[in-house]
Amino acid sequence: MSTPAAGRPWIVEPVQQLLIRDLLTRVRAWAPGQTITYRDLREHDYTELLARVDRAAAMLVGLGVRPGDRVAVMDWDSHRYLELFFAVPMLGAVLHTVNVRLTEEQMGWTIRHAEDGVILFHPDFLPAVEGLAPTLPDVRAWVSLSDDGVAPATALPLAGDYEGLLAAQAGAVAGGFAWPDLDENTVATLFYTTGTTGDPKGVFFTHRQIVLHTLAAGATFAAHQHPVGIHAGDAYLPLTPMFHVHAWGIPYLATMLGLKQVYPGRYDPQRLAELITRHGITFSHCVPTLVQMLLHHPAAAGLDYTGLKLVIGGAPLPRGLATAAQARGIRIMGGYGMSETCPVVAAPHWKPEHAAADDDTRLDVLCRTGFAFPLVEARIWGSDDRLVPLGSDQTGELVLRCPWLTAGYHRDEARTRDLWHGGWLHTGDIAHLDREGYIRITDRLKDVIKIGGEWISSQELESALSGHDAVREVAVVARRDPKWDEHPCALVVLREGHTATPRDLGKFLHRFIDEGTIHKRAILTEIRLVEGLPRTSVGKIDKKEIRRRLAAE
Amino acid sequence: MSTPAAGRPWIVEPVQQLLIRDLLTRVRAWAPGQTITYRDLREHDYTELLARVDRAAAMLVGLGVRPGDRVAVMDWDSHRYLELFFAVPMLGAVLHTVNVRLTEEQMGWTIRHAEDGVILFHPDFLPAVEGLAPTLPDVRAWVSLSDDGVAPATALPLAGDYEGLLAAQAGAVAGGFAWPDLDENTVATLFYTTGTTGDPKGVFFTHRQIVLHTLAAGATFAAHQHPVGIHAGDAYLPLTPMFHVHAWGIPYLATMLGLKQVYPGRYDPQRLAELITRHGITFSHCVPTLVQMLLHHPAAAGLDYTGLKLVIGGAPLPRGLATAAQARGIRIMGGYGMSETCPVVAAPHWKPEHAAADDDTRLDVLCRTGFAFPLVEARIWGSDDRLVPLGSDQTGELVLRCPWLTAGYHRDEARTRDLWHGGWLHTGDIAHLDREGYIRITDRLKDVIKIGGEWISSQELESALSGHDAVREVAVVARRDPKWDEHPCALVVLREGHTATPRDLGKFLHRFIDEGTIHKRAILTEIRLVEGLPRTSVGKIDKKEIRRRLAAE
Repeated sequence: MSTPAAGRPWIVEPVQQLLIRDLLTRVRAWAPGQTITYRDLREHDYTELLARVDRAAAMLVGLGVRPGDRVAVMDWDSHRYLELFFAVPMLGAVLHTVNVRLTEEQMGWTIRHAEDGVILFHPDFLPAVEGLAPTLPDVRAWVSLSDDGVAPATALPLAGDYEGLLAAQAGAVAGGFAWPDLDENTVATLFYTTGTTGDPKGVFFTHRQIVLHTLAAGATFAAHQHPVGIHAGDAYLPLTPMFHVHAWGIPYLATMLGLKQVYPGRYDPQRLAELITRHGITFSHCVPTLVQMLLHHPAAAGLDYTGLKLVIGGAPLPRGLATAAQARGIRIMGGYGMSETCPVVAAPHWKPEHAAADDDTRLDVLCRTGFAFPLVEARIWGSDDRLVPLGSDQTGELVLRCPWLTAGYHRDEARTRDLWHGGWLHTGDIAHLDREGYIRITDRLKDVIKIGGEWISSQELESALSGHDAVREVAVVARRDPKWDEHPCALVVLREGHTATPRDLGKFLHRFIDEGTIHKRAILTEIRLVEGLPRTSVGKIDKKEIRRRLAAE
Repeated sequence: MSTPAAGRPWIVEPVQQLLIRDLLTRVRAWAPGQTITYRDLREHDYTELLARVDRAAAMLVGLGVRPGDRVAVMDWDSHRYLELFFAVPMLGAVLHTVNVRLTEEQMGWTIRHAEDGVILFHPDFLPAVEGLAPTLPDVRAWVSLSDDGVAPATALPLAGDYEGLLAAQAGAVAGGFAWPDLDENTVATLFYTTGTTGDPKGVFFTHRQIVLHTLAAGATFAAHQHPVGIHAGDAYLPLTPMFHVHAWGIPYLATMLGLKQVYPGRYDPQRLAELITRHGITFSHCVPTLVQMLLHHPAAAGLDYTGLKLVIGGAPLPRGLATAAQARGIRIMGGYGMSETCPVVAAPHWKPEHAAADDDTRLDVLCRTGFAFPLVEARIWGSDDRLVPLGSDQTGELVLRCPWLTAGYHRDEARTRDLWHGGWLHTGDIAHLDREGYIRITDRLKDVIKIGGEWISSQELESALSGHDAVREVAVVARRDPKWDEHPCALVVLREGHTATPRDLGKFLHRFIDEGTIHKRAILTEIRLVEGLPRTSVGKIDKKEIRRRLAAE
């Protein structure tokens, strides 16, 4: 408490660490009776959630989990996953959210790379786990996460099933679990992102980062109600898998705010539509593909989604899709983030002055990439390997600074150096900042199409084509071109009951070219009708696979 | 990026510090044209605000301000003060917000205790500053903060007037000021709180704490719209002086969100009422006294305050006052914090289930002390010198843990030890947690009245009496009593045009006693009618002075 020496900064150590357990402090009394629902199988209140988090921690300690240990979870979106979002990091251990849509070989690679000591898995993944077990000598304990509380028959040395193991701890932690005091810079979560080339990359986030992401997302989404905000009366269901960047961190926010929460298990279109309408879900987030499904799946025909607010990420929100969603009562908006960014760093909320704007302008805004959140600095990195000056609308790579970006790729110094080149996190997205300050991503670095030395954005072409009434989905990639180096190739899926020829769609596209909103060389776009598009493990359109197939022709 | 050793926590250093300058990052492009208004004298936009913050920093460096130096500001609420809220800490220096309502002697004491090296003062305080100057040998530079840009005539060695000094830096920082990279634990602000006994106590807050307070207040006020929330469309005017706990930190939040802001200068009832209605102010915060003034001052007669949301702190919100404010269109709610807590740690937002409650219940909730914010742990410290168990409604001292509490009292180890006794910050407020989890302060430790061994809350008596139609204000204190040790003495100010005798008020009070909502010994309450009540320097009713006068009879 003494005065600092002259000319020296006056530094005072923090009075308290930023820990995930403190996200739970308030809700214990705020919403003890609020519900957590798992599919049509289970419902309990927050008091029970907190008791189960205590029991899960006692169970993990019983399995030998120590600070720093990595604990792998392989589950669909569930109440169990939510409990482990808290229990594992609150122990000082690291939650590895395994991407269960990877191949068995890739999952094994990530589990070995993370050096997971414990694996908790849904019985759906028993074949994979049994196949992988001989290659995972570091794993000391196996726990099943069954829906019926019965451990599956297996030769694996199972410690037991989650539900039974929790029940066995009820007495021991009836007075509450004695959580350790942690350093806020303790790593809480670890997961892998698969790029276009090379091995998966492990990103990791500390307690401090998850708490800050939760507060900043809360302050931003809540303070900007238009068109999509979050508030204490919302009911939440994730439509982004929990293994994928903590379901965008929203389960942490929803729990801190004491929202009603519904976890849907494996994504089944009919079940999702039913849960959303039956439980009056008002807030969720997903990739565009999932919106397609909510709108067009036969099980969702005629469903009224009024009251549902959706943030769209993982890919741009096409105007056509936004309009279709609005027509079904959904308040929809883009959003931006990536595995490396915890993830949310931007959302295209309307500014107060947009309240008076026309519908077309407002629709335009919510299809933009987003506006940087508080504490987030978004800049453009020029082709001269330097920051583009503020106030310029020059295009380059989007780079970021903010307190919740991954410090690097786990055990990968070379790619960590590239990620943080020049002291900024490099997103790999090609963007500019528009006159109103919104980020406008025009492409992934690798998705830009180079036609005779000119850069054309595949995303601009996709957005334009998606506005045609008959178009349900579209993906544009580069094809080799003997004359122009590359030309755009658009694969189009038509809506049921609609017809359009490639020639019709070409004419439609020419309007944008004539208007000058799309580069004139887009006239070289090759348009093909297809039955469907390949997907990545997290449901995004898999352009790598599309390019592979085209190259193989 | 390597894996931690077995059994050891995996610690990763932060990728970015939490700094006040980052609260400005977003708003530069979000709201460049949004306005900052100072009285009827000046209006400029956020672009100009940011440029002026740059110039203020350059000016301070020119005056020799170095990291760790304390810079004293003596001003009414102004655009200048807002600029210095940012410029001084962003340099690594410490902003001492001098309480200009203290006596000259007390102000001098705090300036010497803080060891301020620079003083910026409004000409209204020139006599005080001239009187103090000989007692302040550490002060190296003096700057006037005049409204007209003209330095007052004085024998003091003035460096100049703020406006001219800023203008002189315009060229030098046209490309932006080069802010230093700071440790987030650098102290940003320092100010003094005057207690009932002893010297003033200096509390201080770091960059990290102010950023966290801003995010948590943003997330909480915004996510709970009912009855009082904050959102991006609000217009803000402070009604708590900026020297008093950074005007509750709301100028930082309002700036981060890019709100329209109006600073009223010295609090003049007529001007405040005019500014609120002319600028369509929708969000503010104040002590109950100021609400009284907004409602009952002749200049405010008949004004329509519809759209104004008010958070009330510094003293409980009496039901009678809440009803009167609601009748004038104000959405009003209590709130809780103190100088030691940065300050906001609780507010009595309605829970979602209160949406369906009757008006009386909803009114009851918003007059409670508050519900703890996210990351805030509020507990009760029992008379056995231990925490009261969770779930008990036992009364004791309210104690707190959260990341934005002052680490102690500046250069006062003994009182720092008392403040943090047992690892919890002791508020000095007598409280319990109600069944719904809201904090209910029933008294200050020193305001409890002990009648024959029973504790009676002076605040409960005040709240009851304030419900009488004729009562404008009331203060209850303890008086020595030969038989009962102490008895309550209520000083009542009547509304203009109303009449009531102490006997009428006594009968009114007896109803609460008969109902059992107030302890039966309250029947001993002595009721006196008075013309007015003495105030402390921050506008609270001065019970210390009332007790002194009663004791002197």
